[in-house]
Amino acid sequence: MIKGFKEAAVRCGIKKDGLDLGLIYSEKEATVAALFTKNRVKAAPVIVSKIHLEKTKGRARAIIVNSGNANACTGEEGIRDALSVSEAVAEALGIKKEEVLVASTGIIGKRLELKKIKEAIPDLVKRLSYDGIEEFSKAILTTDKFPKVSSFEGDGFRIVGIAKGAGMIMPDLATMLCFILTDIKAERETLKEVLKKAVDQSFNKITVDGDTSTNDTVFLLANGISEKGISEEFEFGLKKICTELSEMIVDDGEGSTKKVKIIVKGAAKRSDAKEGARSVANSLLVKTALFGEDPNWGRIMAAIGKAVSVVDQNKVDIWIDDIKVVENGKGKGNEDVAKERMKKRSFSLTVDLKKGPYEDWILTCDLSYDYVKINAEYRT
Amino acid sequence: MIKGFKEAAVRCGIKKDGLDLGLIYSEKEATVAALFTKNRVKAAPVIVSKIHLEKTKGRARAIIVNSGNANACTGEEGIRDALSVSEAVAEALGIKKEEVLVASTGIIGKRLELKKIKEAIPDLVKRLSYDGIEEFSKAILTTDKFPKVSSFEGDGFRIVGIAKGAGMIMPDLATMLCFILTDIKAERETLKEVLKKAVDQSFNKITVDGDTSTNDTVFLLANGISEKGISEEFEFGLKKICTELSEMIVDDGEGSTKKVKIIVKGAAKRSDAKEGARSVANSLLVKTALFGEDPNWGRIMAAIGKAVSVVDQNKVDIWIDDIKVVENGKGKGNEDVAKERMKKRSFSLTVDLKKGPYEDWILTCDLSYDYVKINAEYRT
Repeated sequence: MIKGFKEAAVRCGIKKDGLDLGLIYSEKEATVAALFTKNRVKAAPVIVSKIHLEKTKGRARAIIVNSGNANACTGEEGIRDALSVSEAVAEALGIKKEEVLVASTGIIGKRLELKKIKEAIPDLVKRLSYDGIEEFSKAILTTDKFPKVSSFEGDGFRIVGIAKGAGMIMPDLATMLCFILTDIKAERETLKEVLKKAVDQSFNKITVDGDTSTNDTVFLLANGISEKGISEEFEFGLKKICTELSEMIVDDGEGSTKKVKIIVKGAAKRSDAKEGARSVANSLLVKTALFGEDPNWGRIMAAIGKAVSVVDQNKVDIWIDDIKVVENGKGKGNEDVAKERMKKRSFSLTVDLKKGPYEDWILTCDLSYDYVKINAEYRT
Repeated sequence: MIKGFKEAAVRCGIKKDGLDLGLIYSEKEATVAALFTKNRVKAAPVIVSKIHLEKTKGRARAIIVNSGNANACTGEEGIRDALSVSEAVAEALGIKKEEVLVASTGIIGKRLELKKIKEAIPDLVKRLSYDGIEEFSKAILTTDKFPKVSSFEGDGFRIVGIAKGAGMIMPDLATMLCFILTDIKAERETLKEVLKKAVDQSFNKITVDGDTSTNDTVFLLANGISEKGISEEFEFGLKKICTELSEMIVDDGEGSTKKVKIIVKGAAKRSDAKEGARSVANSLLVKTALFGEDPNWGRIMAAIGKAVSVVDQNKVDIWIDDIKVVENGKGKGNEDVAKERMKKRSFSLTVDLKKGPYEDWILTCDLSYDYVKINAEYRT
């Protein structure tokens, strides 16, 4: 719990089963830093939350979240629906509607079942509790196999983060919702800066399938109750929470059996390191080889050559954890040892281009039968 | 058959079973137009063929192809191996080594079994025949389920194309080998121009998994025997052959059960049409929905919004074949009808952005359990 914040969850009946409506309430007006999807097709709750934050100049009192329906690609009606939900919440809490932020996750292209949501709001408000985070964390899940919560206790302040996300994950936030609450005191601009820095090193460093959703949102609410300001320790804690939550998302990657850190170093350009790591992480051939526990480094070389502008194929080294499998572009013939290492649930895969000083990394998972099963059968 | 060309195939023992070494021989010196992979990691046969074509100024007498081993990521030794194969072929045929082009396909990172290849060459040369195309087309396959041959008979000239490719297919040629023979007479530069035009509208318009290989090659050999020059009819025939072969590759897409033409029209920019179509075609969520025969247009909207720079989500229309499923960004609720249509093996998926005059398309396939199975178990 974070002093001054209450949470609650109920089942309103949008999802097939389980909790599907969550509420966060801040007793004091909180400063908000928000990051949204870069997808040009934006869901109604993203549009409405942006409008509200503009009106309040980055302040809020509540967040209402539903799972089971993304309220995306629902046109003007979708926006009216999201507004109407925020109004109902504001009325029940006795606050202004623009002080209510909105988030949704689930299938795209279907109108929200407004009636179900509105009918559930009084009960939701009644259930608000200082210990509501666990319940809330369950209400925001879709294909997730487990709820994702991480917290940090600093010198005189606290932070807690709650996230959801499993598939459709790609840098630049993809069907990923994250709510971070803290009792520090901060200006909106500085808060946004530190949030952006933390997200760039965490949520923007994970990829499950290279797809980007219409609904991604990170809200960071600071209510100022602790009287502490932004400090190095706060930045450290925020990054820690974001990192833990993003690793949980990869752990929960749809159908994933492996969590693999892809590192590209020795790049001549910063963009080569970044694009090289992303290309390896998103290559279907690499991802299926990870699933097959096959140290198939030829596929890694091909993914590198596809994306990196400066590469000498006779210089590249490749490691699986600390096992060098490729030296100067040629296999070392120790694939049996590497294969053994790949049986672990988690390992790293490093490509050294030996061309310059730049390094970057990304966290990915494998591509399994279950990914296909989940996504051929589930309607996002 | 094409007058002046002979082909042959043998089993030399690189692949587990079946023919794995093929030879094309041109009785007359032929003009060559060649296109190679854009991957910066290039296989030894690509490097050697480029050197040879430079030396001969685009002329050749023979092409030697092995399957089962890509001779990629094999360092200087790999290049020496490819050179040595071309020498052995040249000797057996009584021609110069730089008149021999080389192509390989199969696993990466393993040295060629030179001894096996060299021992098989005399027999291979002995078997050369005017009717060798069928045998040759079998010798170049890897995970392909069927050989791919297409021919065209024009007014006084003939063209035949032989291709291989199933997985690892992506625009800009990916583990795709294609050999086109014709008896027309042409200058190297013009021949390359018409080849490039045909390939841009065929092989560069197909995607199976977004990966790009180290070995892709298209060779077009014109021996001039017919005395006919490049004509509109020739260009038509060449494009027809490339289109047929590229459609066969998608039909043979690893584990694919659907062949889908993705069309993006009404784009404000040429790049939006191209990138939009590619984004939809390579989205794992779209591809698994195709496999699941699920008209999940929300995933299409998300893939468009990720890649297209100018989009008004409240204007987009989406069709499956001639069934409009989305109008002005909203579902029409006729998904049952659309689902029925998606049971076909082949259909189109059109996105109209209604923002401008540009249109582009790409051919793709679905993502099935079998794709994962093939690629988790097979070593490329």
